[in-house]
Parts: sequence; C-alpha cells; structure tokens
Amino acid sequence: MEVLEAIRSRRSIRRFKPDPVPERLLLEILDAGRWAPSGGNIQPWLFIVVKDSKTLKLVKMFSPGLFGDPPVVVAICSDRKRAREVGGKLAEEYLSIVDCAMAAQNMMLAAHALGLGSCIIKSFSAQAIRKVLKLPDHVEPELLLSLGYPDEQPQPPPRRPLEDIAFLDQYGEPLLKGGGEG
Amino acid sequence: MEVLEAIRSRRSIRRFKPDPVPERLLLEILDAGRWAPSGGNIQPWLFIVVKDSKTLKLVKMFSPGLFGDPPVVVAICSDRKRAREVGGKLAEEYLSIVDCAMAAQNMMLAAHALGLGSCIIKSFSAQAIRKVLKLPDHVEPELLLSLGYPDEQPQPPPRRPLEDIAFLDQYGEPLLKGGGEG
Repeated sequence: MEVLEAIRSRRSIRRFKPDPVPERLLLEILDAGRWAPSGGNIQPWLFIVVKDSKTLKLVKMFSPGLFGDPPVVVAICSDRKRAREVGGKLAEEYLSIVDCAMAAQNMMLAAHALGLGSCIIKSFSAQAIRKVLKLPDHVEPELLLSLGYPDEQPQPPPRRPLEDIAFLDQYGEPLLKGGGEG
Repeated sequence: MEVLEAIRSRRSIRRFKPDPVPERLLLEILDAGRWAPSGGNIQPWLFIVVKDSKTLKLVKMFSPGLFGDPPVVVAICSDRKRAREVGGKLAEEYLSIVDCAMAAQNMMLAAHALGLGSCIIKSFSAQAIRKVLKLPDHVEPELLLSLGYPDEQPQPPPRRPLEDIAFLDQYGEPLLKGGGEG
C-alpha cells in the first residue's frame, strides 16, 4: 500500500474479528515501530505483546478507552531510566512520550498496510496496567495499541481544514491564500 | 512508495540542498499530518510553516538541534487551550504531545515518499521560538520539522534488536523464542 494512501485511509478500529494476528505480521508491525526516529537515538521503547486471554481480559478491564475484543494488545512502554541516563530530564519527561508516539504511528500504518486494524489508547489505569504486566518502576506504560482484523469500516471523523491550522512564518498569518504553486 | 519500505528507508536528514520545497508537496505533507489520529479527535495541532529567510535564520539560531540549512521548517505546535477544554488535563499535558508526535511521523513519511528529507527536532529554546513565531500563551511549540531536498544519504543508526525490546504478556518474558509462525 502506498504511503500517502495509507496515511489517509487508516482508521481507528474499535471492532475486531476473533481471528488471531499471524506472528509474521505482528513482527512486521513491531519492526515498523523500532524504525521510528528517537531523540538522541535513545530508542526508549519497549513493546509488551499481550495475547494471553486472561491477561487481555485484565488489560481491557482497566482500560475504558479500549473498545472491542482485539486478539492482541501491544503495550508501548518507555524505559524512563534509559532515557534519563542517555538524554537527561528532557528525554525522560518529554522525548520518551514523543518517541513512543512516533513508533505507535509507524505501527498503525504498518498494521493498516498489512490488512489489520488498530487503535491507539491512552485511557487506561497506568497503575493497574503496571501490575498486570509486571512493569518495573522505571518502565512507563505510555500507550496501548489494539490490533486485529477489523470488523467495521468506520467513516473518518472530520478533520480540521488546513486553512484553520496552518500558518506562514508566524502565528495567525494564513498559509493558504492564492492556493497556487510556490 | 510502499508503506513498510518508507518506514524502514526514512532517515533523519541534516544536510539539505538549497532548492525550495514545491508548494504542492508542502501541502501534501501538512495534509498527512492532519490525518494522524488524535485523542478524543481533538486535533490540537497547528503547523507554522517557516520559509522567510530572516525568520528561518532566527529559528536556526535558537535551535541547537537543527542542522543544515533547510528551506522550510515546520513548527508543529499544540493548542493547549483547545486540548484542555475538550479533553481536560490529560489532553492538555500528555495527549497534546502524543498527537503532535503522531502527526510528525506522518509528515516525515509523507516527505520521504515525495522525495524530500526531514528531521524532527526538540532541541530548541521554546521561549525564543515562541517570540519569533509570535505564539500566544496557549500555543506550545512541541517539535520542529526541517524539510528540504536531502543533500546526504546517511546510514541508519543501529536499532535495538526486537529480542531486547519485545516481551510477551509481561515484562521480562521474551517474545522471540522459536521464531516460528503463530
């Protein structure tokens, strides 16, 4: 699937078929995550692949933002200790989040290109997820990514038009005026 | 360009040709950004496209992490007020960062697919960038994205192997054992 097409046609999927995610595709998706850039090349990400049905049930119970019954949930975590040691406070407190989010976007696009659906989730109890996945103190659960074969074809939620969100050289100065080639 | 190929072959570019970025490609890249998912569909992102040479010089002066002389820098900002009003404290303080990072990853992949190079940058003085770009208090400069035709073909920095970063069902439990199909 072509990049721009994938970017525009990816949807957040909240209903999944029960079919398992083939291991080969799962590994392709994780691999896409680790090819994201990271601040200072710290690569703080850790991917905890949840497939065990009991663990999935617990994860779902503590994640109000997780919809449907995905056969796989990947907990995208950051090693905050690694981040701090290599990149200091900025890396620990900010870049860890950015790096995991960029990896997540790669993973969502890869999943989509491979015919799978996904949804990124932040609405979960970090404390509970920590316990369920046995995370040590220095590992922060940043985001959950549900994965599976989509059982819906949602319409894209409307996007704010570029006219409202893009400026030229300073805030408030419209980028789009004539709309011609530059 | 195919998605998985783009994800793996994208590099952070720190030397640019002086050629301008065609307006049509720039708009494709910004459009890719706004197709990222966002928490609660808040779409907190604002893109300030810096092309004016005096403004570029100022941005560069206050951004130690910005290398080369890109003809365009996009300041990816978040509207923290919008985020708070729609999504509360979590959106204001966390999702704003995640959403802008996911948009940034889309933009880097789109740029790469269109033959352009980019680099994501956090090492800048937020206070100075705020002044230069006349950002109101509620708009936070999250990341800078340099854009232009690449004048280098860097080797990928080594990635941590999946064996080190991927676990199964709980932290510490290796995902990769037999390496077969699941």
